[in-house]
Amino acid sequence: MPQPPARAPAAAPAPAAPAPAAPAPALLGGAARVHNLNAGPGALPLAALERAQRELLSFPGAGMSVLEMSHRAPPFEGILRRAEEAVLALYGLSREGEHEALFLQGGASLQFAMVPLHFGAGGAYVTTGEWATRALAEARLAWGEGGAREAWSSAASGFDEVPQGPLAAEAAAGAPYLHYTSNNTIYGTQLRAHPTLAGAARRPPLVVDASSDFLSRPLDLSACDLVYAGAQKNAGPAGVTVALMRRSAARAAPADPRCPTVLRYSTHALAGSLYHTPPTFAIYMVALVAEWALAQGGLAALEARAARRAGEVYARLDAHPDLYQGHARPHSRSHMNITFRLPTPALEAALLREAEAASLVGLKGHRSVGGLRASLYNAVTDEAVGALLGALDRFARAGA
Amino acid sequence: MPQPPARAPAAAPAPAAPAPAAPAPALLGGAARVHNLNAGPGALPLAALERAQRELLSFPGAGMSVLEMSHRAPPFEGILRRAEEAVLALYGLSREGEHEALFLQGGASLQFAMVPLHFGAGGAYVTTGEWATRALAEARLAWGEGGAREAWSSAASGFDEVPQGPLAAEAAAGAPYLHYTSNNTIYGTQLRAHPTLAGAARRPPLVVDASSDFLSRPLDLSACDLVYAGAQKNAGPAGVTVALMRRSAARAAPADPRCPTVLRYSTHALAGSLYHTPPTFAIYMVALVAEWALAQGGLAALEARAARRAGEVYARLDAHPDLYQGHARPHSRSHMNITFRLPTPALEAALLREAEAASLVGLKGHRSVGGLRASLYNAVTDEAVGALLGALDRFARAGA
Repeated sequence: MPQPPARAPAAAPAPAAPAPAAPAPALLGGAARVHNLNAGPGALPLAALERAQRELLSFPGAGMSVLEMSHRAPPFEGILRRAEEAVLALYGLSREGEHEALFLQGGASLQFAMVPLHFGAGGAYVTTGEWATRALAEARLAWGEGGAREAWSSAASGFDEVPQGPLAAEAAAGAPYLHYTSNNTIYGTQLRAHPTLAGAARRPPLVVDASSDFLSRPLDLSACDLVYAGAQKNAGPAGVTVALMRRSAARAAPADPRCPTVLRYSTHALAGSLYHTPPTFAIYMVALVAEWALAQGGLAALEARAARRAGEVYARLDAHPDLYQGHARPHSRSHMNITFRLPTPALEAALLREAEAASLVGLKGHRSVGGLRASLYNAVTDEAVGALLGALDRFARAGA
Repeated sequence: MPQPPARAPAAAPAPAAPAPAAPAPALLGGAARVHNLNAGPGALPLAALERAQRELLSFPGAGMSVLEMSHRAPPFEGILRRAEEAVLALYGLSREGEHEALFLQGGASLQFAMVPLHFGAGGAYVTTGEWATRALAEARLAWGEGGAREAWSSAASGFDEVPQGPLAAEAAAGAPYLHYTSNNTIYGTQLRAHPTLAGAARRPPLVVDASSDFLSRPLDLSACDLVYAGAQKNAGPAGVTVALMRRSAARAAPADPRCPTVLRYSTHALAGSLYHTPPTFAIYMVALVAEWALAQGGLAALEARAARRAGEVYARLDAHPDLYQGHARPHSRSHMNITFRLPTPALEAALLREAEAASLVGLKGHRSVGGLRASLYNAVTDEAVGALLGALDRFARAGA
């Protein structure tokens, strides 16, 4: 991790000495803040952090920190309700609607286990990356090798794309659910519409792992029995999973009668997310972040901004195709995670140093893909995107 | 939840008008803090909260909040290591020892499911309360009605005691593990020594749900394969489970081959608690709280203080046996949670108002027991205990 304002040593293998870096980051609370482009946990809105800081010793009216507040006392009940209402409102839903918001633990990895135990054998999986592959593996662990099917895969091409047209009907027809990952953090690909089936085949209810684009764009929930997301990208800190679940599905008994109580959606739905002690502070942060997202104009506005910003970065990459090589095929590019390589590891290291000098951190690609990755979640500021564009420009000019 | 300094309306059914309440709570960060006697999540050390507040926008050297920090970057690796080392040090252990510290999610409720899947059928359970009963039920859900046995129970007497002598040998002999709850938050009872078996029977490895007395007293780990605790009593905020697990047990494959990957201890042990995104901020708070506990003199010092404080409260209750009726039998009394009733619900309500007036919150008993409960966790100040003693005294005098 860079020690921000300190300049990295001269970049030995760099194509040339880079131009002066962006100005030092603003001082806030007496400490410098960097431009955080981590893939997750990632940047949170400064306004939400500042409010959490103000309220950290004593939440208004409670006389204690949210960190030490009983989950059964009215102040936390109010926080939980705020989180539910704000998240639902962002998707145009209400607490009285067909879908309910659940706050769970264990991240997407626990959802990979809960989904097949709940929905049963025979699930169909679109495998567009590492997490999707893990989700399929958990369904097979639950129900045996034949207990779940792969509806579509881009494994053969290094997960560089997502489905473009309808899936073959037989890939998912009759399945109890069709699972897909809406944004692939590691590979930088994104499905911006639900997958469909060819012909007249009825599409099963959708189960969507939306971990890395949740709260970043509108989503048609009517086709979904479940949309789940670890909060730690656009929605809050690590430690809470948000699930939007069709009420009728959430209250059904699990397909596996041996399913542990705490892994049953019905346990949490019937208890209003208070079956056991919830991750109270993480839920509070989700409330603050979701309320911030509403104040930004909601998901349509955030989507427009994300599209514009990602477009600017992709345009820079495309302008220097000999230097910057995107991992995702253009039609599958993510607005959240932009993955690319340079011709040599030495050049990649040099660009990382250039970025560090501009206070940009978290740009190293996932170990399974290598290269670089810029995650432009909701809370990443336009200033940070500008600093990234500047670094890409300077580095390309220096190497030209 | 009371609105602290505001005085409750005159206590109509109270025995008499109480004497003047304790002084108003100190102002901190511009907001009043009450005396938090909640059963959990509960009071945290003010010093830990103040440090978290100072670092909330920018953790030293990282340029970002812990709430937005990658779990794979060096600053968080340092925090995780601090949490491991401090928790282990409190138990006289090190990172190289026979037991390792794991940071998990899902609270004790998820441990109830993970334990039988891991250790196998035939576990023996000491059922001393609601949580112990739920743990046994999960073992039977996993392995069938005959798949776990009750080694001892105080259900018939309303869970008012814990075992005093050795358990019958046949209650647990040959079991793969013996599970017990070291402190029963709801009922106010506590086992202050590991249960033993009568005669020459070999005691199985112990699995201890220490959720509500973890970090409050020394514990002999040598007999334990696993000690687990939801952090939200003495160890930190809600959202992280700390497990001290024998290394050999933690790395073994689960007894149930269908056990989901994320429910396997080996998954987390082999990945150093970084298999998936951990609850980063909650772990940070555990580090701060455990370091604070070390600075207080460690677990022996905290135990001595807890014994003294609980002793003072029990003495007040015992001094007025017609007014205050303890739930736990004296030999089973907890140092953490003190549960008692008054002769009528009206008197209980009046005492709660008296307590509120002294800025004491969280004293209402669990809905399954009723009455009152005072939780005197590590971070509850001596000032708060003094305020409680004062309220008990005033109330008794007023009613005399």
